[in-house]
Amino acid sequence: MRGTVIYGARDVRFEERADPAIEAPTDAVVRVVAACVCGSDLWPYRGINEIGGPTPIGHEYVGVVEQVGSAVATIERGQFVIGSFYASDNTCPNCLAGYQTNCLHREPVAGAQAELLRVPLADGTLVATPGQPAPEMIPSLLTLSDVMGTGWFAAVAAQVRPGMTVLVVGDGAVGLLGVLSARQMGAARIIAMSRHEKRQTLAIEYGATDIVTERGDEGVARVRELTDGVGADAVLECVGTAESMQQAIKSARPGAHVGFVGVPHGVTIEGTQLFRSHVAVHGGPAPVRQYLPELIDLVWKGEINPGKVFDLTLPLEQVAEGYRAMDERRAIKTLLLP
Amino acid sequence: MRGTVIYGARDVRFEERADPAIEAPTDAVVRVVAACVCGSDLWPYRGINEIGGPTPIGHEYVGVVEQVGSAVATIERGQFVIGSFYASDNTCPNCLAGYQTNCLHREPVAGAQAELLRVPLADGTLVATPGQPAPEMIPSLLTLSDVMGTGWFAAVAAQVRPGMTVLVVGDGAVGLLGVLSARQMGAARIIAMSRHEKRQTLAIEYGATDIVTERGDEGVARVRELTDGVGADAVLECVGTAESMQQAIKSARPGAHVGFVGVPHGVTIEGTQLFRSHVAVHGGPAPVRQYLPELIDLVWKGEINPGKVFDLTLPLEQVAEGYRAMDERRAIKTLLLP
Repeated sequence: MRGTVIYGARDVRFEERADPAIEAPTDAVVRVVAACVCGSDLWPYRGINEIGGPTPIGHEYVGVVEQVGSAVATIERGQFVIGSFYASDNTCPNCLAGYQTNCLHREPVAGAQAELLRVPLADGTLVATPGQPAPEMIPSLLTLSDVMGTGWFAAVAAQVRPGMTVLVVGDGAVGLLGVLSARQMGAARIIAMSRHEKRQTLAIEYGATDIVTERGDEGVARVRELTDGVGADAVLECVGTAESMQQAIKSARPGAHVGFVGVPHGVTIEGTQLFRSHVAVHGGPAPVRQYLPELIDLVWKGEINPGKVFDLTLPLEQVAEGYRAMDERRAIKTLLLP
Repeated sequence: MRGTVIYGARDVRFEERADPAIEAPTDAVVRVVAACVCGSDLWPYRGINEIGGPTPIGHEYVGVVEQVGSAVATIERGQFVIGSFYASDNTCPNCLAGYQTNCLHREPVAGAQAELLRVPLADGTLVATPGQPAPEMIPSLLTLSDVMGTGWFAAVAAQVRPGMTVLVVGDGAVGLLGVLSARQMGAARIIAMSRHEKRQTLAIEYGATDIVTERGDEGVARVRELTDGVGADAVLECVGTAESMQQAIKSARPGAHVGFVGVPHGVTIEGTQLFRSHVAVHGGPAPVRQYLPELIDLVWKGEINPGKVFDLTLPLEQVAEGYRAMDERRAIKTLLLP
């Protein structure tokens, strides 16, 4: 089969690789129907995260089950499935508590920007849709593998409740779907920080009521102005830099939770700042497995359309251009079709 | 009147001072019936927090209202009252959200280790008891001014729920009352970290089910052993050092909240640690004003007896010995009677 391999900074290649096979009896092999490029794939692409050598890449996927191991009980050949970027058994105490990305037996899923993908712990990791989806539903289903579930977790961790004023820091695909999630959870007002017109437009379509274009202390001042001087009731931090975390904490009211899902790069928080501000922080890799049944249902009924974050669709063999377009911010998110 | 003034490290004096008077129409003057020494008073006492010059000290108090300003509407002369260490209007958005220690008009209350005390924003700050309390109830009522409310907030911020396994880091008065709070909120199991026999005994009396004497990584390993490898469901961090915060975070299960109430000294948290662990942190100066009605009720009915943390009672004029005894860990907490 053919798949994507990252060789180094800005060096992504689509090439012939060995077909994945069942390695453990709990594995499944999935024929990928759609994959995509994640914001977190840009960290190694930009050379910020080092890689040890040529590495298969991609962790967002939907597809049809091609083969299952002898111990797989609930997932069957032919089903259309979605899974998380971490395989989880879904039975350990951390899974049962809703933190499948901290499963005691978790394994990363890697190499999803390919024609075939091995998924460990198939019963715990994959969720089948109610039937074969219509083609137009596939982009939205694909987002549930990571980006939509990540925006959703940001809103859960920020403890968004009906009627709240919610701030979303970051206008990438995760931030935009954080807006959608906050709206779905009943936020009365959603302030999106963005200075890109195309992203502002989608944020508004997803439910943002206010756009803040200022950054840093000016951005904080603007959010405080919009919230009668007290700050936002809940904040979604969807970037992962020191600046975005400060933006989030300083814009939050006392008692607010900052839900953070951007992989932190150089983020350090002073205890004194949290103490004085009474701001809570909670985040991590989103346990998207927990949300799959609920979010599949919302997509299936047409109640949410997270797939709109894909503004570039390419054949999988043009994956390198997909990375370039996101790196240069020409695209919000690239959909890849094998 | 006579009151306590700190002059520098380990230099606390009881001396003649001017009687406090009504300065703003919202003030009250309270004749102090009991005061005490707070763990946070030890920071300047030990020279860790610098002071600018001789400073009246003390912020925990109960007493009888002696005088009220012309704008005070609900508090009356002769009432027995308890107030927070921060004066708050109890009407601003932060107060209404339950964060009175971040009141938009807050003022510190200082100089409570004295015969008389001026309390700003009396209507928002002071809560009267249902009547004049019996003398034996006074120590417990006094704890509601800070230390008991602080232990309570630690448990609230840690999101303690019935049936949880709760870890309490710190065996000072706040930690011990954190144990009491967790028990009151329905924790099934309470692990207290302590290596002092007297404090262990009180922790057990307050509801601790397990005592961990190990510290650092050994302490973390012991807590993980006691929780089937996953960590505690909720953690109360009642010290405020870098070591105690690490102890708390590393002992928490994914999704657990660390409620932290020790004033942070040198505490820095890496975003990556919070991200990988899924542990949430939430803390700050306890909004004890919020809890006063509920906690007064519990003390009045005899359902809780937080006053047992006082293991040394001195006449106010011996306040310096009260500080020494706590500094040398001969006393958990010193009660002072004018």
